[in-house]
Amino acid sequence: MGLDDAVYRLLKKRVGDAQITRNPEDRVCYSYDAAPGQSFMPDAVVFPESEAQVADIMRLAWEKRIPVIPRGSGSGMTGGAVPVQGGLVMAMTRMNRILDIDTDNFIASVEPGVIVADLHTAVENKGLFYPPDPASSAVCTIGGNVGECAGGPRAVKYGVTRDYVLGLGAVMPNGDIIHTGVCTAKGVAGYDLTRLIVGSEGTLAIVTRITLRLLPKPAYVATMAVCFDDMGKAARTVSGIMRRAVIPRCVEYLDEASLALVRNQLQSDLPDQTRALLILELDGDETLVKSQTEQIRAFCLQSGALDIRMATDPVQAAAIWQARKALSPTLYQIASQKLNEDIVVPISKIPDMVSHIQTLQQESGLTIVSFGHAGDGNIHCNIMYDKTDAAQVKQAHNAVDKLFAATLALGGTITGEHGVGLTKKGYLSWEIGEKEQAIMKQIKAVFDPRQILNPGKIFS
Amino acid sequence: MGLDDAVYRLLKKRVGDAQITRNPEDRVCYSYDAAPGQSFMPDAVVFPESEAQVADIMRLAWEKRIPVIPRGSGSGMTGGAVPVQGGLVMAMTRMNRILDIDTDNFIASVEPGVIVADLHTAVENKGLFYPPDPASSAVCTIGGNVGECAGGPRAVKYGVTRDYVLGLGAVMPNGDIIHTGVCTAKGVAGYDLTRLIVGSEGTLAIVTRITLRLLPKPAYVATMAVCFDDMGKAARTVSGIMRRAVIPRCVEYLDEASLALVRNQLQSDLPDQTRALLILELDGDETLVKSQTEQIRAFCLQSGALDIRMATDPVQAAAIWQARKALSPTLYQIASQKLNEDIVVPISKIPDMVSHIQTLQQESGLTIVSFGHAGDGNIHCNIMYDKTDAAQVKQAHNAVDKLFAATLALGGTITGEHGVGLTKKGYLSWEIGEKEQAIMKQIKAVFDPRQILNPGKIFS
Repeated sequence: MGLDDAVYRLLKKRVGDAQITRNPEDRVCYSYDAAPGQSFMPDAVVFPESEAQVADIMRLAWEKRIPVIPRGSGSGMTGGAVPVQGGLVMAMTRMNRILDIDTDNFIASVEPGVIVADLHTAVENKGLFYPPDPASSAVCTIGGNVGECAGGPRAVKYGVTRDYVLGLGAVMPNGDIIHTGVCTAKGVAGYDLTRLIVGSEGTLAIVTRITLRLLPKPAYVATMAVCFDDMGKAARTVSGIMRRAVIPRCVEYLDEASLALVRNQLQSDLPDQTRALLILELDGDETLVKSQTEQIRAFCLQSGALDIRMATDPVQAAAIWQARKALSPTLYQIASQKLNEDIVVPISKIPDMVSHIQTLQQESGLTIVSFGHAGDGNIHCNIMYDKTDAAQVKQAHNAVDKLFAATLALGGTITGEHGVGLTKKGYLSWEIGEKEQAIMKQIKAVFDPRQILNPGKIFS
Repeated sequence: MGLDDAVYRLLKKRVGDAQITRNPEDRVCYSYDAAPGQSFMPDAVVFPESEAQVADIMRLAWEKRIPVIPRGSGSGMTGGAVPVQGGLVMAMTRMNRILDIDTDNFIASVEPGVIVADLHTAVENKGLFYPPDPASSAVCTIGGNVGECAGGPRAVKYGVTRDYVLGLGAVMPNGDIIHTGVCTAKGVAGYDLTRLIVGSEGTLAIVTRITLRLLPKPAYVATMAVCFDDMGKAARTVSGIMRRAVIPRCVEYLDEASLALVRNQLQSDLPDQTRALLILELDGDETLVKSQTEQIRAFCLQSGALDIRMATDPVQAAAIWQARKALSPTLYQIASQKLNEDIVVPISKIPDMVSHIQTLQQESGLTIVSFGHAGDGNIHCNIMYDKTDAAQVKQAHNAVDKLFAATLALGGTITGEHGVGLTKKGYLSWEIGEKEQAIMKQIKAVFDPRQILNPGKIFS
């Protein structure tokens, strides 16, 4: 049946003119996300403003078997928000209210369209803290973070989105509204539907309300940039830091190619021989953080650091992070296309993985830029190529194959925080066995027997 | 078909004489757990020693449609390990090896039968830390903790079992062996089967191997007992403590009746007027913990504490915890039976709940003993009664009804860490809606279409 004129009119009747469009110029904006090279036109885009509207739309989509693709800001890296079978993109961006910040119980209740950076600001203004902070936090939505189980640099100490979601309101593919989890610190009544929906990449239900656990805002933060003349040295230093009793809140690394891209944004003259950079951040009690910072400084110098630049004020710290966060989009200065993979290896295997990536670069003849969350072994590996050059395209995909094989051989995973979406579908079987995938597919069928919600993703 | 002589002989052939029994004196030991008054005889008890054996047993059980009830030490509080339909109890206690403690990556790999206190000792000897510490840690198994998503006093700061399980090996009801999750800090490939199995109370799969995240062992721990002349005052102090930026690792409370039971074990003369006790514990850097302890002491005194007793050495701290942990079994000194409920309310509602429990005590004429993890709003409320007195039995169940109604009205949950099992089945619908339960039942059917694994629990 699909989204034909008749169905479009029905949808329009339900939500009103201002909340739906099928103009080509609008649709093209919702045909892609941050996954390079993936673009499919939706038949229409709808902008619900309430849970009841989401349910109303889904009842119609269910009846008419229309694919529905929930979407936040479209900053996902694996094509999770791309309408591969056309249908209706449901942009959640207008459901962007912070409903409550409960300072007595350290809990927030929010709609999915809230921008993560806005959530940070709102809770921090009340002395609270929401740790997950993906690089795209200035634009990405909390609903998208829930869909992908987003991580970011602070996961080293604080964990990922999953660790902060206490409960959800969600709309099922058939339009039923469900509530999962609790609004208390603990709760184990029945199966954990909350964490089943977190990270399900918009394939099980459309999240309409999120209850989040918050922490007290750390009293003090110290940010430093540590320079090395060799990436291997930096990687070994990370392994060493992570074996110590002090867990920094962030342990990021930038390889030489990454550094070249953002060097001038760091507001600090790095030594000329710098070929790799670690960004370390500690938080907590001021006196303690200062003494821990000294210990880590000493350890870095012992491990062969060329120089250590402490951010002396929040502006300088912000500049370091801005440079780090700008990396992903800046990569297109190197080549017209990238394959961006967020592999994870055990922390002690980071030096092995770094040397493997160097070999891969030499073998493929392609530029491979790597940076990421070294503290939890989560490496963003970007294989750059010219998309008009067939040989390079082939080499790039070949390099990804080798990268994933090496990752899995080291006991790692093919995706730490970006999800499988569209771009890693072909690799899922490398990591997840047939039996386990069969269970996942049956769970999908429990939620969505008509397979209308974000079809063509993960394993479908 | 069931577990008749022929099937018993087949089972015995698979595992050998030393790993199976149907002697009545053995079976009676596996007919009950720590849930008072729930006892059902199994037809046989099997003691697998490897994952392959578990799979082998399950293939036969599947074929013959025999109920199988996985069991750790039987210390569960809701009848989760009780064979309500007879069948085969699978005692996991012989699969009790700590397979690996990886000090580079802060990860442990263990079999389900490992006693939690043994795990604590083993990792602490290597400078690491596994936070979850249920009151039964000296006897309970890590597999049981995974099944129930156990919590314990340190959950205030460190979270519950779910937050430490990275991956699982498990055997499906049909005998298939599956592997879920990762052995890295992050991982989002496919649906989160790991956390779906955690807390599923042995109804989805039999856990055979657990990969756990560990932390560095805290450098210093301060334990204190804070005396109040009034439970309401103690409850308001908890709410006040939890609004501060310092999160203690434990915030436990004992009401007057609890205190009476264990007062002589505390190795400390409490002031005569003491009617309620808080046990507070902080951990971390020694200097910082000492200064935080001072702040919290001052706050407690301001809030009307009679006296504060600091544990001056680990022996004294251990005595305080031993007294606290002994509470649950000691309760039978008061009456022959208890209904033990582990409700959770938002932290700010603890004073309301405490006053509600006092009213309930007056109305019912029964002794109600309450204690528990006040820092996360998780109250263990024990309604004591004479099981031979029909009027008291009725009053007790009536009091539970009122307790749960009040808990849910305050935004809480009927179970923070004990699970639903058998004893809370009748109340599940008070908290979980029909649609959500329908999803859970369908997920159960995905894993266990023949309904042989721990039947008659949660909602079945």
